[in-house]
Amino acid sequence: MGKKLTKRSEDYSKWYNELVVKADLAENSAVRGCMVIKPYGYAIWEKMQAELDKKFKETGHQNAYFPLFVPKSLFEAEEKNAEGFAKECAVVTHYRLKTDPNDATKLIVDPNAKLEEELIVRPTSEAIIWSTYKGWIQSYRDLPLLINQWANVVRWEMRTRLFLRTAEFLWQEGHTAHATKAEAVAETTQMNNVYADFLEDFMAIPVIKGRKTESERFAGADDTYCIEALMQDGKALQAGTSHFLGQNFAKAFDVRFTNKEGKQEYVWATSWGVSTRLMGALIMTHSDDHGLVLPPNLAPIQVVIVPIYKGEEQLEAITVVANELVTQLRAQGVTVKFDNRDTHRPGAKFAQYELQGVPLRIAIGPKDLEKGTVELARRDTLTKQFVAKDEVISVVENLLVQIQKDLHDKATSYRNTHITLVDTFEEFKKVLEDKGGFISAHWDGTNETEEKIKELTKATIRCIPFDAKEEAGTCVYSGNPSSIRVLFAKAY
Amino acid sequence: MGKKLTKRSEDYSKWYNELVVKADLAENSAVRGCMVIKPYGYAIWEKMQAELDKKFKETGHQNAYFPLFVPKSLFEAEEKNAEGFAKECAVVTHYRLKTDPNDATKLIVDPNAKLEEELIVRPTSEAIIWSTYKGWIQSYRDLPLLINQWANVVRWEMRTRLFLRTAEFLWQEGHTAHATKAEAVAETTQMNNVYADFLEDFMAIPVIKGRKTESERFAGADDTYCIEALMQDGKALQAGTSHFLGQNFAKAFDVRFTNKEGKQEYVWATSWGVSTRLMGALIMTHSDDHGLVLPPNLAPIQVVIVPIYKGEEQLEAITVVANELVTQLRAQGVTVKFDNRDTHRPGAKFAQYELQGVPLRIAIGPKDLEKGTVELARRDTLTKQFVAKDEVISVVENLLVQIQKDLHDKATSYRNTHITLVDTFEEFKKVLEDKGGFISAHWDGTNETEEKIKELTKATIRCIPFDAKEEAGTCVYSGNPSSIRVLFAKAY
Repeated sequence: MGKKLTKRSEDYSKWYNELVVKADLAENSAVRGCMVIKPYGYAIWEKMQAELDKKFKETGHQNAYFPLFVPKSLFEAEEKNAEGFAKECAVVTHYRLKTDPNDATKLIVDPNAKLEEELIVRPTSEAIIWSTYKGWIQSYRDLPLLINQWANVVRWEMRTRLFLRTAEFLWQEGHTAHATKAEAVAETTQMNNVYADFLEDFMAIPVIKGRKTESERFAGADDTYCIEALMQDGKALQAGTSHFLGQNFAKAFDVRFTNKEGKQEYVWATSWGVSTRLMGALIMTHSDDHGLVLPPNLAPIQVVIVPIYKGEEQLEAITVVANELVTQLRAQGVTVKFDNRDTHRPGAKFAQYELQGVPLRIAIGPKDLEKGTVELARRDTLTKQFVAKDEVISVVENLLVQIQKDLHDKATSYRNTHITLVDTFEEFKKVLEDKGGFISAHWDGTNETEEKIKELTKATIRCIPFDAKEEAGTCVYSGNPSSIRVLFAKAY
Repeated sequence: MGKKLTKRSEDYSKWYNELVVKADLAENSAVRGCMVIKPYGYAIWEKMQAELDKKFKETGHQNAYFPLFVPKSLFEAEEKNAEGFAKECAVVTHYRLKTDPNDATKLIVDPNAKLEEELIVRPTSEAIIWSTYKGWIQSYRDLPLLINQWANVVRWEMRTRLFLRTAEFLWQEGHTAHATKAEAVAETTQMNNVYADFLEDFMAIPVIKGRKTESERFAGADDTYCIEALMQDGKALQAGTSHFLGQNFAKAFDVRFTNKEGKQEYVWATSWGVSTRLMGALIMTHSDDHGLVLPPNLAPIQVVIVPIYKGEEQLEAITVVANELVTQLRAQGVTVKFDNRDTHRPGAKFAQYELQGVPLRIAIGPKDLEKGTVELARRDTLTKQFVAKDEVISVVENLLVQIQKDLHDKATSYRNTHITLVDTFEEFKKVLEDKGGFISAHWDGTNETEEKIKELTKATIRCIPFDAKEEAGTCVYSGNPSSIRVLFAKAY
């Protein structure tokens, strides 16, 4: 398999699929719709996890772990939630295999080991968690309960794509319980903001914060907040959601508490999550035709040093300089790799690190030794410069900060030029086809219009932005009055 | 539910079950045999994970993630492995639910959504991983492949106990591929040593390293190394295993590589794992009738400060001192909590932290303010001392080190006095009943004798210790010649 990628302009979807595999991020597995996350991809996910986990703990949350399986009777307790996920549930029905009587080398499901009640592999954990919270919450003193779980979940999707939509994926799901509605709403907002800050500051991905329409809400929620990002092909990607669940799960699982006045009340709930889907957002925000581009914050290797040499003697002299740089960079907290493999030529190494998005590459050859310089290349801009050896450390440190900022600026600029105000349906369709991106348009607030627009254009309402201004207007489709613009887009 | 625990001498098993629940470590869930790991228990597990993960990475391993499900045809490919786990497999047979035609509030499994091939919820991941490695390994340059996975696994156990034996548990599983047998054996040894060092140094649990007999080997392994710990009730607990898998999985999944001479060879394999079972080992090594005792390395809270006060004014004065200590201790990397809740009395707080095993408790009352002292209590010894305020930081730092060491010494001393050399079967049975612990005895090396001893006494061979000396003797049961003593015990 060659390393050359399909160009984005030729076939964006193909480019994405090739990049994920060739950059060693993930691949399809023997299990329909389930992926293998390869070490390099997983190392990026670990960096996301570490930063998010820190943010969750700083906002007072603790981690816990709840069962993978949900008994069917619990699963169906909250009707809207159950209805929303029923069509994509993997179901465990048996607990034993036995030798096939017709072929001793094969196994078959043992019909005598049928479960009395089927178990659903969790597509989300509200049901199992709220059935547990019932035992944990008696009084207002037990509230708030601020818990997060890192876990795998399964949603049996028919059309899957690596990271973006897989039958099994990894995620975190926060599940909190509160004494008052106001507190639960504040938590919903807080966690949506935590996600937004994480994407902006850590992943260098600009996002728009807003509220989902009723039809796009999480099944079982009273309100869903979200962060929406824009990919390079003009399609939107929902990167994280934070749900205000009202008292729906408390009522379904009878979770009440005694308030300060001694009266029984139902508990208020939130849940919020981000998943390995963020890997897709990362790839489709920054990468280019040469491969992955990583913001330094997420790069498993921030700087790679490649020696250019002929013979042992040159390699030894270069190694002395390289080791010095490695020591100094590590002391500054920079992740650096000296790639002295003699099985690969420098050109092959350059191509590999370009494909894998290592932010900075340092090449050292015999001429550099003479001159006391190194060649420093930026992955994001593909530019090179010669840097005096003594200045390498400070230049690298500054560049890592600069690249992080530049990637954010570039993505923000792209996103901002792809929010188009539109006032007629003809223009709506034209912008959607020719330019893509977000379309800011008036909507009459009805499900019918939303559905009709989706049917005609494949665009959905990504969110009602929190920062949208009240503005008198008429619905882009129905012509009925509207007081606010919402954001439409085609989406992943 | 009262906080008082059953005494260990009365009913060790009951004490354990109560402790796990009352110390907020875990509880049974609505799903048969599956546990909920509560935040406090999970925080301890996270500390284990962090340290192990560091050790794995230091020894060159990378994390990755493989699917939860194993298609039946892959699962049965390595016959011994399949046979070993077939009886405890949760099986997914359907991928959709639908509304019950007889009751619109209920869901039933949709018979039209039957999978063509059943999926096994992984009880261990050799099969899915080796079917993947086939695509990753072509040449000796691709080796060694050193990969670890943090994951949940499911083994449908009939009798379950929190942490010790649950249908679903959390673990890590390392899966490595090597070009030579010698390298794979060295990896098997290395990882068994990593586990041993982790238990000894970090968990303060002494272990015996050795090899399993054939009948106790992992299904599909050529050799299983293990670390065995001794619990306070005289029963052994297998705390970790490291398997040399030979070429069994390489052959089952046809994973070959081209060696340096250009010839095709099958790859050599290892796998190794520890699980949330370690929580059980931790509890049953150090804890006492008052509750959990934690080595400082694993304590989510190492020091708790409890104010003893009447009225706001006293609390304020104490808070000044407490905050100073908190700041200074945190600067030294000590995890400290100032518990100023006004909803609980000091006595209740003392009881809670005792139950939860916080290593050091500092109490500060008005008299302490006058004298410039604090009261410092050790959880492990239940001893108290007054310490001058200026000396608190250094005393705490020293004590945390001391407690870690003392717990290890105490457990080692108990373990060492519970290894009994036995030469007759009468004595064997007597020691097993009266004293418990490990019995060091000669064994003739046959499955039959091992099986017979197990049948008659419930003791199994825990391991053939690596440090056992060659010594002429006769089997404690059959009287046949033996050249080495092995360790028997009843086990968890």
